[in-house]
Order: sequence, then C-alpha cells, then structure tokens
Amino acid sequence: MTPRFDFASDNTAGMAPEALAALVHANAGAAEAYGEDATSAHAARLVRELLDVDASVHFVPTGTAANALALATLCGSHQAVAVHGHAHVRRGEAGAPGFFGGGLGLVPVGGEHGRIAMADLERLLTRPNSSSDQPIAALSISNPTEYGALYPLDALVALVGMARDHGLAVHLDGARLACAAAAGLDLRALARLDISILVLGGTKAGMPGSEAIVLLDKTRDRHFVARIKQSGHLLSKGRFLAAPWIGMLESGAWIERSRHANGMARRLIDRLAITPAHPVETNAVFLAMEAEQRARLRALGWVFYGLADGHARFLCSWSTTEAAIDELADAIVATRP
Amino acid sequence: MTPRFDFASDNTAGMAPEALAALVHANAGAAEAYGEDATSAHAARLVRELLDVDASVHFVPTGTAANALALATLCGSHQAVAVHGHAHVRRGEAGAPGFFGGGLGLVPVGGEHGRIAMADLERLLTRPNSSSDQPIAALSISNPTEYGALYPLDALVALVGMARDHGLAVHLDGARLACAAAAGLDLRALARLDISILVLGGTKAGMPGSEAIVLLDKTRDRHFVARIKQSGHLLSKGRFLAAPWIGMLESGAWIERSRHANGMARRLIDRLAITPAHPVETNAVFLAMEAEQRARLRALGWVFYGLADGHARFLCSWSTTEAAIDELADAIVATRP
Amino acid sequence: MTPRFDFASDNTAGMAPEALAALVHANAGAAEAYGEDATSAHAARLVRELLDVDASVHFVPTGTAANALALATLCGSHQAVAVHGHAHVRRGEAGAPGFFGGGLGLVPVGGEHGRIAMADLERLLTRPNSSSDQPIAALSISNPTEYGALYPLDALVALVGMARDHGLAVHLDGARLACAAAAGLDLRALARLDISILVLGGTKAGMPGSEAIVLLDKTRDRHFVARIKQSGHLLSKGRFLAAPWIGMLESGAWIERSRHANGMARRLIDRLAITPAHPVETNAVFLAMEAEQRARLRALGWVFYGLADGHARFLCSWSTTEAAIDELADAIVATRP
Amino acid sequence: MTPRFDFASDNTAGMAPEALAALVHANAGAAEAYGEDATSAHAARLVRELLDVDASVHFVPTGTAANALALATLCGSHQAVAVHGHAHVRRGEAGAPGFFGGGLGLVPVGGEHGRIAMADLERLLTRPNSSSDQPIAALSISNPTEYGALYPLDALVALVGMARDHGLAVHLDGARLACAAAAGLDLRALARLDISILVLGGTKAGMPGSEAIVLLDKTRDRHFVARIKQSGHLLSKGRFLAAPWIGMLESGAWIERSRHANGMARRLIDRLAITPAHPVETNAVFLAMEAEQRARLRALGWVFYGLADGHARFLCSWSTTEAAIDELADAIVATRP
Repeated sequence: MTPRFDFASDNTAGMAPEALAALVHANAGAAEAYGEDATSAHAARLVRELLDVDASVHFVPTGTAANALALATLCGSHQAVAVHGHAHVRRGEAGAPGFFGGGLGLVPVGGEHGRIAMADLERLLTRPNSSSDQPIAALSISNPTEYGALYPLDALVALVGMARDHGLAVHLDGARLACAAAAGLDLRALARLDISILVLGGTKAGMPGSEAIVLLDKTRDRHFVARIKQSGHLLSKGRFLAAPWIGMLESGAWIERSRHANGMARRLIDRLAITPAHPVETNAVFLAMEAEQRARLRALGWVFYGLADGHARFLCSWSTTEAAIDELADAIVATRP
Repeated sequence: MTPRFDFASDNTAGMAPEALAALVHANAGAAEAYGEDATSAHAARLVRELLDVDASVHFVPTGTAANALALATLCGSHQAVAVHGHAHVRRGEAGAPGFFGGGLGLVPVGGEHGRIAMADLERLLTRPNSSSDQPIAALSISNPTEYGALYPLDALVALVGMARDHGLAVHLDGARLACAAAAGLDLRALARLDISILVLGGTKAGMPGSEAIVLLDKTRDRHFVARIKQSGHLLSKGRFLAAPWIGMLESGAWIERSRHANGMARRLIDRLAITPAHPVETNAVFLAMEAEQRARLRALGWVFYGLADGHARFLCSWSTTEAAIDELADAIVATRP
Repeated sequence: MTPRFDFASDNTAGMAPEALAALVHANAGAAEAYGEDATSAHAARLVRELLDVDASVHFVPTGTAANALALATLCGSHQAVAVHGHAHVRRGEAGAPGFFGGGLGLVPVGGEHGRIAMADLERLLTRPNSSSDQPIAALSISNPTEYGALYPLDALVALVGMARDHGLAVHLDGARLACAAAAGLDLRALARLDISILVLGGTKAGMPGSEAIVLLDKTRDRHFVARIKQSGHLLSKGRFLAAPWIGMLESGAWIERSRHANGMARRLIDRLAITPAHPVETNAVFLAMEAEQRARLRALGWVFYGLADGHARFLCSWSTTEAAIDELADAIVATRP
Repeated sequence: MTPRFDFASDNTAGMAPEALAALVHANAGAAEAYGEDATSAHAARLVRELLDVDASVHFVPTGTAANALALATLCGSHQAVAVHGHAHVRRGEAGAPGFFGGGLGLVPVGGEHGRIAMADLERLLTRPNSSSDQPIAALSISNPTEYGALYPLDALVALVGMARDHGLAVHLDGARLACAAAAGLDLRALARLDISILVLGGTKAGMPGSEAIVLLDKTRDRHFVARIKQSGHLLSKGRFLAAPWIGMLESGAWIERSRHANGMARRLIDRLAITPAHPVETNAVFLAMEAEQRARLRALGWVFYGLADGHARFLCSWSTTEAAIDELADAIVATRP
C-alpha cells in the first residue's frame, strides 16, 4: 500500500495557498538581510495586531527552536522549568531546551489531558530547598496541550498567577494556538496575562516552517537577536520566514484554516461515535486502540502515531478533506476487533 | 535615496526561478515529516552525484547552523578548531561554534586573503602543550575564503594532509562553493580529499535558505540527526529545504548562476580598472576606500559592507544585473576623492 | 538541641587520620603545579595497583565533577545516558551531567533497590528510533546503589554486556566503592569488565574531598586534562587532591575504614531488629518511618535524610562510633509510635 | 639537575602554616555538608569584614571555577565579556568562561602591562551593532594584571564607570588581590565601587586551593549555589575550603605573607639592577631574556615560564626565601650573554 501521511501529523501537509502566494510575492527584488527587511517588519506588526500588544516579535523556522530559545531566555543552565510531563518541550524535542539552556532542567508536573494540575504545581513549588535540585525559575504551559485539550482562560489566569507568586517567568507553547483561537480562545485576553514569552505556531497552521516568538515582556528582547543568530536561526533571507505570516494573517486564513482542521477532527470522532481518550477540543483525535487494530490499519496504508499508553493519534490539518476523514473512519470501523 | 541592497551581500537576492519553481512543485500533497520524505531523499542523491561520493547529506536552513553543527561534531567542548582569523565561523556567526560546541574554542591562524598559511598552521600545531590551552582537534577551511579568494587544489591537499598528520578532523565551509566550482574548482577531486565534513551552500547560490551538510566521513553520521533536531534545525516540513536543491542542481543553475555572479564581479573590477584589495576570483570585490568616499557612496543609496581595515566590500549574486554593475561602477568613479 | 550530623551523610565526617597525615606530609616544599607533581603520580600508581589495571587516573575534588566529566566524555550533547531513575547523577547532582554535557539527556531505567533491571534496560535499548528522542549512547551504573545495595559481579557482567551489545559506553559511579570492596566485591575483577570510565570515591571514605576518575578505556584520555581544566577542576596545587589517596591506600585504610562503616550500619539494623526498606549491604540503613516519628527524632537533635517515599536514611562513616549507633538505635526505639 | 619549581608560579608553594593549622583544626567532629557548616559561615563573615561589605560569599577550589562562575552569571551564552587580550580568563583557563557560559564570548581589549586602556574599551563599546557579533554584556578586570601591574584606584573608578554607562556588569579577577592589598590597594574602597562580582584569591596567597566569590551585587546570589553545585564545585566537606581563610584572615597572614612575596620580587629586580619588562608592583618579575639564556638557566634546574613575546616570568610566593632569590639572581647574572 502507498503510505498515507494525512493524519500522521499536522506537519505532513504543505503550505496553504495564502502562505505560498505571499512567499512568491516576497521574492521580488533585493531586500535587507537578517530580518531587517520590510516584509519581516510587516509580519511582526500583524502579529502584534492579532494579539493587541506592544511586543517584540521574531520569526524562526521551527517550534523546537522557538520554544528552546524562549526557555533559555527565562531560565539559566543551573535552573529548571516546571512543565507537564508529556509536554512537547520535554518529550518531543530531543532535549532542545537542555541544549539551548546549557543544561537547564525540565521538571515534570502531572495533570489530565496534558493540562498542568494546580495542586501538582503547588507541591513542586513548595518543596524544601535542596542543593541536589535545580531551582525552578520558569513555568512552561502548552495550549492546546500535547493531547489537543484546551485550558479555559481562568485556568491560565490561575496558573500564571501561581507561577508569578513564586517568582517564576512564564512561557506559553502555542504551536497550535491557531486551533485554540478557532475554538474560541480570546487571543487578546491571553496576551494580557502576565506571560513572559509566547510562541505562536505557523508551521502547523499551513506555513512552510515558521514560528513567531512573541516577547510580551519586552525587557527580554535585549540582545535576543544575538541568541537567534548564535543558534543558527537568523535566516539571511528572513523575508521568507515572515511572508507566510502576512499571507495567513491578512486573509484570516491562520484562524479559518485551523477552524477547518478542528472541524475535521470533530467530524472524525462524530462519525466513529466512540469516546475519545482525550477530549476533542481542537484538531487532534486520540483513540484507545489495540496493537492488533493498529497493525491492520497500518497495513491499509494509514500512517499515524502510536503512544506507549495504548492510544493512537490522528491529527487533522488545513488540508484534511472530508473524504479522507470518511475513508479513515471507515477503515477504523472496518479494522475493529 | 531609496537604499539599494544589491551589493550588500549575496543574500539580499531572492530565490532564483529554478529554486522557486521546485519549491512550488514540492508543495503538492502530504509528505512524511522531519526529512524522511521523498523530496529530501532525491535532493540528497543529487548532492552525492554532484560530488561523486557515498556520503550522508542533511539540509539545514542556515550556514551558521551547518558550520556549527559540523564543528561541534568534530571537536569537543574542551578542544579547539584551528581557523583563519577572518573566517566566517570566527567573525560572522556571533559565536555559534562555541554555542553548539558548549565552549569549543576557535584558534586563529594567519594568511593572506583569508587563506590559511601553512607555516602559521604548523607553528600552531607544534606549540608546546599547556593545560592553559584548549588542544586543537580540527581544522576549518573556507573555500572561497571570506575575501572571495580560492585555494588551488594542491594547497587544499597540503592543508588537509598537515591536519591529518596531526590527528585533526577537517571541516570545509563551502558557503560559496558554487562560485568556486564556477571558477573551475573540481568538486569531485575536492570530495576525494580527506575532509570529514563539507558544507555546501545553497542560500547564496539562489535558494531561500538551505545548506547541505555533507558527511564525507560517514562514521560522523551516527546520531547526527539528533544533533540537528536538538538544535532546532530539523524542519518538520523538510521538503522545503530540499526542493530548491533539486531545482538548482538538476537544471545546472547552481553552478551557472554562480558563474554569472562571478562574471559580474569581474565586470565591476574591470570597469573600475583599479587594483582590488583581494584577488577577484569569485563573486566578491574588495576595494580600498576612504571613509569620505564611503559616505558619499552611501548618500547615493548604495548599501555595502565596510571593514575595519578600510576596505569596502561589494558582493554579486545570481540576480545582479549588468546595468547595476555599470551604475555602481559609475558611482564609485564619481565619488572618488 | 544541638544538631547531630553523624548520620546525615557519610560526608559529614572529617578526614580520617591517614588522609590528614598524608596531606600534611605532602605540604613540604615546592612542587610542580596542575597535577604534574610526584605526589599525584604516586597516588595514580596506587590506584592502578588497587585495580590491577593500566589505566589513566585523574583526581578531582567532587563526585559530581568526576561523574559529570565521565558522562560528558562518553556521550554527546545530543545523546543520552541510560541510568537508574534514582541514581545520584540523576537525582543528586543538580543537573551536572546536562551542564557538563551541554544538554546530554539522562533516561531513567527502573529496578529494585537502585539496581537497574535488565528487562527495563532492554526495553529502552530496543525502543523504536524517533527524532523526538536523544539516542542512548552510554549506560551509567552505581555500585553500591543510591540505596546501599550491591550488584553481584555476574549482574554487572550481564549489564555491561548488554550495553556493549547495543554500542553503549559504560560509566560506573563508585562514590562508595570502598564500601563495596569491604563487603567483598573483587575490584580487580570489576576493573576487567568492559567499563569505559570508573569513578572511585575518596571523599566518603575519609578524604577531604577527592575522587579518582579511572579511564579504563585509555583512548578516552586524549585531551581529558583539558576537560578537567576547562571545568575548573584542575587544582594548581594538585598534590592536595592526591596525597590523601596515598595515605588511605598505602595503609589499607580506604577499605578497612569502610569496613568499619559497613559494620556500624549492620550494628544499627541488628539492634533495631526490624526489616530495612532496602537490604543493608554496605554503610546505609533505610527505614520506613512515619512523619511523626521523624519529627520526634529530629526534635532530639538527630539529623538524617527523609525521602519522598516515606523512608528515613541513616548513613555511617569511618568516624561513626558504636556509642553513637547505640544512642541512635535507642532514640529510634523511643520515638516509635 | 633537580628541577626547582620555586619561581615557576606562586602556586608551586604549599600551604602557609596558618592555613594548614586552621585546616587541621576544622577537621574535628561532624559538620553539616555542602557549605552549610559553621566554618564556612565564619570564613564568609571574615571576608565581608575584610571588605567591609554586606555581600554573599562562596568558596570554590580554583580560580578558574570562580572566574567562570562569575562570568556565566553576568553574561549569557549569546553575549560577550570585554577583557584584556592577555587576561588569565582568556589565555590561561582553557576556555572555561565559554564552557561555563555555554559559548559566551571573550572580546579582547588592548592596553599596556595587562591594564585595559580606556580608549580601547570605549572603541569597543561604541562599535556599530551587527548581528555577526556577540553583544558585550560585561567587563572583566584583573587586578593585579597578568603581568603583576596594578591599577590605581581612580583608574578602576573610571573603568567601572564606563562599563556601567554602557549597561555592562563588572567582574574583578583578584586571584592575587592579597598582593595588591599588600602593595597599598584599599580593599574597602575597591569593594565600594560598582563591581558586580569580585573573586578573591586564596590559593596563591598560601591556601591549598580556595577562592572566594564575593557577590557584591547580592541580587546575583539568587540560585547561585545551584550554579556551584551543577558545575561540581560545591564540596560536600565545605569546611575544608573555608577553614584556610579563617587561618589566613584572622592572623593577618593573607596580607602579610603576600607582602613578603612582593618584597621578594622587589629584592630580585633590585639585585639584578635591570629594567623589567613590566613594572614590578606586586610579586611578579618579567624580564626580557633571549632563548639561549633561558636554556642555560633551565639547564641549571630553574623552572620558569617563558612567554611568546620573549619574556621570562619569575613569580614569588609566601614561601620564597631570600636565599632562593639570591641564588636565582646569581644564576641570571651568570647566564647572561
């Protein structure tokens, strides 16, 4: 069978038309290098408008880079970041935060569906001091979580408040924040929380590889470009990181195409009429699925992510079609034990 | 005056048509993520054919990343790389090798026009051991050099030989290797030298931001993808780093458009009929120019790079036009003291 | 109550008389700096004789440094070390391996009493490759374990064999190896296993702060002194790190005084006549103890380490007296619920 | 000839009697580990009294560690420290600042006798911004300099003022500050300058290996112990790092024995009646000396440090005798061409 990558991740899709058109448009003529060009300035302005904030905005090619640069800014090598045990920065980035931060630690916190539980966080932040431990200097929150779940705004308010009460800086990994916005999250309210650095995802929303690092705490911007440059993420032709944002934000496609992705996940779970392993609040569907069924489904050509806890993950993107959803749903039903 | 970035660097140009077309072509459909896709495999095969080697090939978005990943592979944090004092890795990358290598050192070696002098290198490699120094574990060579000069092949043979005799690994920074190839360098002969890792530049040759890391010493490939991932350079949509190489290599544009860039530099120095500060062997023209003339030229809108040694640098690219060369030449003549 | 630190750790004791005498002896006259002195050479020779190996030996002031230098030598920043979840390098050193190794990962493996379970290790080493993970490049074993338990020699043979079969280097943390030797471990047999780097503890055995890094794999010694120097662990007056080893090894005190420490732990558990939380095989006694009893015991002046799993830890050293054991045992009995 | 290490460095001497006595005294009984003991608190108090400041004080075993921990606290991996080109942190510590600081840069500044020239520093701090450079975030000053020269207090005032005007933090490497104090430097006035972190040398003043990190800017103390621990410099038996300070400071030996060292250097240059290569203001004598004479002197058993600029360095310590000075002076005279 030809493998079908449609649901393996939301990064198996290409560029959305709006992103591609903007990229082609930005190609004309010579432009200043290293992000000093007009296209980069334009895209940064659009991000500020989206969030209604006066923040510094930088574009880098990957979410791994964006998150790791943020954490290394908020946390020294001798300190640690409190983070959900299943967060992408801890499980999906091959140790990038430790590399960027020269050994900074990631201390896991528990909670359902990838959401940090307040009680668990409090327990960590009130543990006795010990020279054996890296002291906690920052909190990292993912929204949506690694399992596609959302935090209600008041939960974010409470988490950020607890972090601030303990002197922590706050990072928000928004690799799929467009999906959260499409699901109703008020981005302007989010940006008014006391978050230090917000990472806004473009890649999974339909760009070729571009994430926006939004330094809501502008004091963090001092020499930040040097951090980007030193880690090899300051593209000389920076316009190509920025242009897709112009295409996606000016057209509204950044949210609208994520709304489509969310809708496709909803369609899948509705058609299956089973209880998902995690609430389907954005573009991800997690299903309990036995090894035998996974194998049968893969034998039909479907590629998807299998987790150690026995779940199978199906991710929808801007390019997912209703036909593909229906084919997949039929295949899942057909391979059931 | 509107600033004119044409000669500020060869990275102020956009994508060459062949690169753009390939990028658009690669956008269709879903593809496996993280460089496991067919486009990436195709591009890697073309690079191997270009060099006629059985090497591992990886694509990353910047030369800074490519060089730093290479050096960190060849040299531990406690060791150092011998490198020309004016090499890009030492002067133009904001400390990236030290960051990727966790503190690895760069020890400068002298030589004219950016070329490492054998005698200087030998002096360094035979200095007495001291616990004060980071021991030299690798040699980094740039070809063309930071000043656009080329090494004859036999000079490279001698340098690599001396490095190997002292137990050093060898890195070659080929950010502008297309210009060297266009100027007659035999890439297949180069690749048969005992170089450990070769970085092949795509960005300055007309791509949107893509460099090929060629692990000629395939033993260095063990876990190398983890290095790329951990540093945030493993693009999930890897096809967009690879596709431009297909467009540029299959068409021959990678060399032909660099031949054009070289020709434009030659046209400039010929029209000026003065002696350049460094031999014009590729796409760069360095001129001795007083501060007053620089200021006058900038007042006319021209953007270029001024060096501490009193030189002005003009770089040509695939997109440089004869008309622009002639305008610039006229302006240089007109602003002369 | 005056706090009593006798059982808080085996590092609350001072220097044993043999160590102190050797230190005073080494103080006479001028000596070559940075470990090039005759005292350092003498001590290194004694360590080689103890193990009956031709290895490179270096002395550093702390176990944290010794272990971290070893792991950074065996594992790149992009790779990871498999290690017991409760190992000292993972739980007691504030992220030192990640710092020395520029972000190297530590992947926990399970097993009782701090001993790595073969099945758990095998599961880790045969997991599917993923670019999300840092690949495993080394195995770290502690003997005695963090809980005072020992590996039988054949268990070490099996673990090292499995590691080697998967291409891993091997580190052995022997912070309390003197206790293991006193309990019957054959050090010469240990040193003939295919271990890459062995750390031999001096501090807890009665030295002022000195650990021996034994590079059984001598190829690892290339530029190793530069690693020690760069991390600030190359003492200019290196004789003071080495001299205590001469005093302790030539007199046999290194093992004999650890035998005493083991005997004191045995005396404690025998007097209490209860089942310990972990087998008492060396100098540590772990007891299940309710929070109320811990508080009462502390109110009597005893200082000891309380673990999150509800255990209390009592460590004996060369300086522990029978009288102190008996006092402590009486206090534990008296404070029982 | 038996080698004579008396003048090779001031770290070839052993412990001064006051340091040794205090070490032996501190050995009695059990003590809290990891620097939480009474001896460490006592020594820290004495350092504060010496400087008449309310600062945080920590002890580490080497100057390399002390300086590197300080610089990593003041400067991120993406930033750089301005430092004299011949400073010990740049030339004598095998890249330690870059290692501790994860790639932080050291940018050389010129000036005679190891003293930073104001004009050179100003030129660096007013250079145009470029993404190629690591931005300067701190200034490091050595007093005495690497060549034994002193800064007058007003020169320090001016340097620190310029640094502060440009937003830089300030580090002072005082490895031989006892010699400066003995030569008349007012330590209390020094400590009232706006220096962020001061490193106070104990080793070269007669201790076994102990340096005091004085955080004059107490905000820098947040989590600083974690930095010490993570780098392997938090000795479990911390009393042995602290005790020598009690012996040397309470007796006045820290300054008095350095006064002796300074006097011996003065005696040497007076007896030779030649012009030294650098002003003899503390305990170092630098002489221009041809290679042939160096060889002859070494053939007589004398060990000393030869510099690339043709100078020979002779360092005096607390243990240098008048007889040794006279012997050396005679030998230098006898070997003259």
